[in-house]
Amino acid sequence: MKNPQAQFINRIEKERLRVEESLRSACTLNVTVTPVIKEAMEYSLFAKGKRIRPILAIKAAELFLKDTQAVCECSVVLEILHTYSLIHDDLPCMDNSDLRRGKPSCHKMYGEDIATLAGDAMLTFAWEVLITVGRKWGFATDLILDSILDLSQSIGANGMIAGQVLDLQMENKTVDESVLQDIHYYKTGCLFGASMAFGARLSGASSDEILALRKFGYRFGRIFQITDDILDVTGNTSELGKPSGLDQKNQKSTYPQVLGLKASQDLAKKECELAIELLEPYTNQASLDLKDLLYWLLKRNT
Amino acid sequence: MKNPQAQFINRIEKERLRVEESLRSACTLNVTVTPVIKEAMEYSLFAKGKRIRPILAIKAAELFLKDTQAVCECSVVLEILHTYSLIHDDLPCMDNSDLRRGKPSCHKMYGEDIATLAGDAMLTFAWEVLITVGRKWGFATDLILDSILDLSQSIGANGMIAGQVLDLQMENKTVDESVLQDIHYYKTGCLFGASMAFGARLSGASSDEILALRKFGYRFGRIFQITDDILDVTGNTSELGKPSGLDQKNQKSTYPQVLGLKASQDLAKKECELAIELLEPYTNQASLDLKDLLYWLLKRNT
Repeated sequence: MKNPQAQFINRIEKERLRVEESLRSACTLNVTVTPVIKEAMEYSLFAKGKRIRPILAIKAAELFLKDTQAVCECSVVLEILHTYSLIHDDLPCMDNSDLRRGKPSCHKMYGEDIATLAGDAMLTFAWEVLITVGRKWGFATDLILDSILDLSQSIGANGMIAGQVLDLQMENKTVDESVLQDIHYYKTGCLFGASMAFGARLSGASSDEILALRKFGYRFGRIFQITDDILDVTGNTSELGKPSGLDQKNQKSTYPQVLGLKASQDLAKKECELAIELLEPYTNQASLDLKDLLYWLLKRNT
Repeated sequence: MKNPQAQFINRIEKERLRVEESLRSACTLNVTVTPVIKEAMEYSLFAKGKRIRPILAIKAAELFLKDTQAVCECSVVLEILHTYSLIHDDLPCMDNSDLRRGKPSCHKMYGEDIATLAGDAMLTFAWEVLITVGRKWGFATDLILDSILDLSQSIGANGMIAGQVLDLQMENKTVDESVLQDIHYYKTGCLFGASMAFGARLSGASSDEILALRKFGYRFGRIFQITDDILDVTGNTSELGKPSGLDQKNQKSTYPQVLGLKASQDLAKKECELAIELLEPYTNQASLDLKDLLYWLLKRNT
């Protein structure tokens, strides 16, 4: 019998493959006019990703439902939105990153023009997928509209985009922990929070339950970002699939730089405890998986 | 008593102001985190635009309804989507245009990073506006979902974005009329078609009626593009509000270049006749306005 940690890794990998299959099935892109844009979109979308946002949505759904296939298929919208943001963030006028998910970033492969348009196309395509798949599964139209509205706000000018703007503005500046927390709340937390809310909403959760799980997502995002910052210092490029040391090169403030390595690790652990408190009302396997995902974040090396 | 032409111009200007007011009211952007992104969005959105896409939607609605205030307020989504496409098209990695709507283009004012993000934010914000305003007016949720789906497809990788890709690919190449027609069908026609469909759908038009009016929009877009190409040759920068001669500078194929000036003008007139045929079922003032809009396109100098 395998140990619990191996069983968890196994379960999450199964979940990842399930997301992967839904992604492939939803994104058999019927683009015939200009094949290069289809190619660029698929290049970025099907690069090996952790698919954490859809997995969070599925786990949030599993807190309420046994059969989460419908939520799984809808949750690919989260990965599409996330991938659009990666393509645009990597552009030379933004973070100027040449490597992503272990491969040359989209603009290195296809040029800045096609990469910009591929990102735009994905940000557009996401809603098409959500509406088509959501209707196929018979979700109430109001639930689909609420999901589009929530996601739009979470990745918009008061959400993820605000985070990217703050991030760019803070390059070459000394920031304190509270500014850093703001940046990451917007840049990473909002979409993680919306991912949890997305899975919960489509599973009939109450607004209080959605709110609490969104907060879990925020905290999850914060831990994700702290450990991401730590990995940028301690990790290596080949394991990460993106350049290590990029934050320092772009003179971006990071948790290790502002707090030191040890205090950053302690902060991640503290956030982890607070996130776990939000799972108290739930006792099924999904709540255990969400806890294990937190522990996995703390220990991750990619 | 004014002549009919002056009356038409007057009516369209009133319509434009009505759209302007709806745009202001829908887009009182509640962006507090990063004021610069709000500023960049408003800079581009509230630059003096013709607002043709919302006006088309309103005129399509007036074919079926007397009170089109609800459609007018929803139709600002078309202007937001159009403005996002202008911001990204003007970027150095695309058409590299320094001037737009009579002012420095967004990236000249705010930098490429903020302009890219402002475009992204508008493409995201559009749906928030449509859902919020559509719900306020009590439109059936399925109509709102259908609208989002149709618009997403019209501006996506098989719509407007395909047009931009084709356009970029054809720089420095000799193209024939059919390729040129393809480029403009996707780049301009799809959103014009969707604008007509948008107004008709929200006004309870049947699917056959929506289809015919979408075709009207395609033809309208084609005339718009032919006359745009002609203006790029015959117009001047200060009247256009964007650089004249830019097509030639970017070595883009245009109608005057492929067909000659006279044949381009004849083609526009021919398209105009075909568009008018599609209005045959309608006899009210809106159908006359749509015809006048076509004639205005033929004669426009901005």
